Amino acid sequence: MSQSMRHFLSPTSLSPAETRDLLELAAELKKDRFRDTLRGRSVGMLFFNPSLRTRTSMDIAVQQLGGHPLTLNIGQGTWSLEHREGVVMDGEFAEHIKDAARVLSRYVDLLAVRSFPERKGWGVDRRDPIINGFARWSDVPVVNLEGAMHHPCQSLADMLTIRERVGDPKGAPIVISWAWHPRALPMAVPNSILVEAAKAGMDIRLAHPPGWELDHEIMETSRELAAAGGGNVKVYHDLNEAAQGARVVYAKSWGSIQHYTHPEEEVRIKQPLRNLWRITMDHMRRTDDGFFMHCLPVRRGVVVDDEVLDSPCNAAYDEAENRLHVQKALLATMLGQGS
Amino acid sequence: MSQSMRHFLSPTSLSPAETRDLLELAAELKKDRFRDTLRGRSVGMLFFNPSLRTRTSMDIAVQQLGGHPLTLNIGQGTWSLEHREGVVMDGEFAEHIKDAARVLSRYVDLLAVRSFPERKGWGVDRRDPIINGFARWSDVPVVNLEGAMHHPCQSLADMLTIRERVGDPKGAPIVISWAWHPRALPMAVPNSILVEAAKAGMDIRLAHPPGWELDHEIMETSRELAAAGGGNVKVYHDLNEAAQGARVVYAKSWGSIQHYTHPEEEVRIKQPLRNLWRITMDHMRRTDDGFFMHCLPVRRGVVVDDEVLDSPCNAAYDEAENRLHVQKALLATMLGQGS
Amino acid sequence: MSQSMRHFLSPTSLSPAETRDLLELAAELKKDRFRDTLRGRSVGMLFFNPSLRTRTSMDIAVQQLGGHPLTLNIGQGTWSLEHREGVVMDGEFAEHIKDAARVLSRYVDLLAVRSFPERKGWGVDRRDPIINGFARWSDVPVVNLEGAMHHPCQSLADMLTIRERVGDPKGAPIVISWAWHPRALPMAVPNSILVEAAKAGMDIRLAHPPGWELDHEIMETSRELAAAGGGNVKVYHDLNEAAQGARVVYAKSWGSIQHYTHPEEEVRIKQPLRNLWRITMDHMRRTDDGFFMHCLPVRRGVVVDDEVLDSPCNAAYDEAENRLHVQKALLATMLGQGS
Repeated sequence: MSQSMRHFLSPTSLSPAETRDLLELAAELKKDRFRDTLRGRSVGMLFFNPSLRTRTSMDIAVQQLGGHPLTLNIGQGTWSLEHREGVVMDGEFAEHIKDAARVLSRYVDLLAVRSFPERKGWGVDRRDPIINGFARWSDVPVVNLEGAMHHPCQSLADMLTIRERVGDPKGAPIVISWAWHPRALPMAVPNSILVEAAKAGMDIRLAHPPGWELDHEIMETSRELAAAGGGNVKVYHDLNEAAQGARVVYAKSWGSIQHYTHPEEEVRIKQPLRNLWRITMDHMRRTDDGFFMHCLPVRRGVVVDDEVLDSPCNAAYDEAENRLHVQKALLATMLGQGS
Repeated sequence: MSQSMRHFLSPTSLSPAETRDLLELAAELKKDRFRDTLRGRSVGMLFFNPSLRTRTSMDIAVQQLGGHPLTLNIGQGTWSLEHREGVVMDGEFAEHIKDAARVLSRYVDLLAVRSFPERKGWGVDRRDPIINGFARWSDVPVVNLEGAMHHPCQSLADMLTIRERVGDPKGAPIVISWAWHPRALPMAVPNSILVEAAKAGMDIRLAHPPGWELDHEIMETSRELAAAGGGNVKVYHDLNEAAQGARVVYAKSWGSIQHYTHPEEEVRIKQPLRNLWRITMDHMRRTDDGFFMHCLPVRRGVVVDDEVLDSPCNAAYDEAENRLHVQKALLATMLGQGS
Repeated sequence: MSQSMRHFLSPTSLSPAETRDLLELAAELKKDRFRDTLRGRSVGMLFFNPSLRTRTSMDIAVQQLGGHPLTLNIGQGTWSLEHREGVVMDGEFAEHIKDAARVLSRYVDLLAVRSFPERKGWGVDRRDPIINGFARWSDVPVVNLEGAMHHPCQSLADMLTIRERVGDPKGAPIVISWAWHPRALPMAVPNSILVEAAKAGMDIRLAHPPGWELDHEIMETSRELAAAGGGNVKVYHDLNEAAQGARVVYAKSWGSIQHYTHPEEEVRIKQPLRNLWRITMDHMRRTDDGFFMHCLPVRRGVVVDDEVLDSPCNAAYDEAENRLHVQKALLATMLGQGS
């Protein structure tokens, strides 16, 4: 891991070579589960939002490395953090993130933070003020457990899953597809897999209806990384076309930036897209023995058919399991003796 | 433990002989508290409902066996699971129990689940769709930490407490008595002690007012088990009569199946029963040096008099403590090397 | 630690000499973090109210001593405890503190309890019925993690911080100052530092506007302790005057006992005090190279200026860190072999 890297906030926190090393370590830790790397160390996990997979896999990751996991559920409304500097705190916020980060740094050896966007405006949310505030003020390394822009632990698990099934992913065609969903969802997961797949030089087919474009910076970053890594990013508005000959179909619903502050309007507008953007066996048959990926939780019959999920082409459970292994590799790399 | 047993869902998950073995192991673990049986293993506890005793005793049970306990509080409303198969998930449920169970199986070595009934209908609730859904789809053993029908860890602790005070419980007279309570309560606790006491061949006096009959299947199972074990089940509508010469008075309020979906109606109807169905010292004096049991929490002056709880005949604290010891024996049996 | 001491409920649970010994042990544990003192022991933490610092520092304290921490969040409304004796429990309370304390004593080796006052009346609240109920009925030692009257773990951390910066605090001038805050806050923190500083024989300048007097018993106790220890307690109504030549400025907002049950009235009345009772660099310049202390969380620009908090005179982060070290010393003293 490079000297400059202190925090793990997005897929770009790791270079392509560092990512490969980390995934190799993850594969080793998947076979040989226990290490003493974190003996005497504590990892604090701050959840501003609910979690099942992330919480469980991080907790067990720390424990299997001999460390002490500590989960703090930041209640909705019960405790909130000011992140603006120099403000007179006479309103709803009882504590400044500057102070919370500094104090928690005195207790734990690493802070992992989940903080979903508040949907007050994409311009503010995309800067992830809570997670980046912790990164700025903490004296210990910070790991992003999902914010508005990125879910980088997820995309590491995704890449381990892809490597397990296709070997070196360079040049392998992957569909990253939007899916219909009854609600307007965040964009962190598609953003992170897009950047991560670009970094690995994959042949990326980003499929979504017009109006569901991802953030411009994410698109730029992924195009640059793909170019550097020998891959490319192409946008499709037709899922059937995108699926043709693909090795991976990565499905995820996400929200429209255009309607970011009016999710109910987005829900109305997207109604006609419902059945066109649900992954079926027909899509899978168009692929080159492709497999299905999803970060879970997934709505059966809505995002993807039961038939796909209950078939051998479903890699989503391996993907979920790999969260544990990549997070162990990440913690070992960030907190290990040699780091 | 029999080869066929993977999960621990009800008292009938264990044969009479297996139950005796498990209680003997629990008695050993009560004297000699620490084992290394679960070294490197993780136990996930899923609470869909509040818990104090269960959560604490399970957590410490895992830890004293050298394992890693992990508690997941499934928020009311924040996270809910679809359990019906083949349904299009476009409603309130974001995840299918099939997927949640499979994913959690990748992280932990055993899943323990508490899920109280939703009181939408006894016909549905009595099938315990959440706990049985986990048992069906999980790849690791599942332990029931209380559902609509059973609280089998409680009844194991009950039997250890009875054995400590009367030796072999075969033929010993036990009153399992309904009690008045300001609300309509679940039936899992009386169901489980009834079946467990029947399995041990006890002389069971099930005392309750007419209209508070337990589930027909529970009654049938307990009568069959009692017959096989040399005991019997007799229903009383008079608590004084039932208490005569008993060794154990096991009190618990429970709800009426007849009024299952209208608890407020049950509360109105049972008002006249209030003082008739409260355990007093007078009841205890009718017993043969009998002792008082209750799963706790208990409402003093309502379910039982202070005088009983604060006397040496109260075995409820031993009963609560024994949760720890029987759960350790259960975990050691289910996850130990020889299993 | 004296034979009579079983619980740690207030600063007066420890004599001046015992406090010094404990702080010396804390200083040792700050340098040499790991001990095996709590191997095989479990510590149960009951939070009736939110917590960040206390929860984290206690959890890590237990873990670094080789023990097993267990956090129980007592939900607001989901679980509540009756503390009055002999009452018929047919109302909102499902469990008596007598039973809860006895049961939890069977599972853990020490109980630590946080229970904020309910603001129904100072006469009731000041008796801390929940924490003192646990102390009365528990069979294991109880530690107060903040009630209505005291936050004694905080004041131990405060004294360690003071000793680190001034050596023996005897005779050292400390300002304990009220601060304006948009809400009416509890009094446990000022009460505890007042008594603790008095026990150490400090020259105490208690500064607050008329109407914000602390509880009469606290004042009496601190005056007696100060007299015995060679210090004194003097009340100031002018912060500038109090700050003159002080070594420590300890700021904290607290509520008025006069308006205890009408906090909105207090908020209205104290509006004119807003800028007069905010710690500024100007106050700090009046001190004798004094440092700033606060238990955190703190409202920047309201209780204290950014300029103070972001300067080297801010000791609040050390103070927060010291929570960990003093709590380890406390646990080691209460549960260690020699106790």
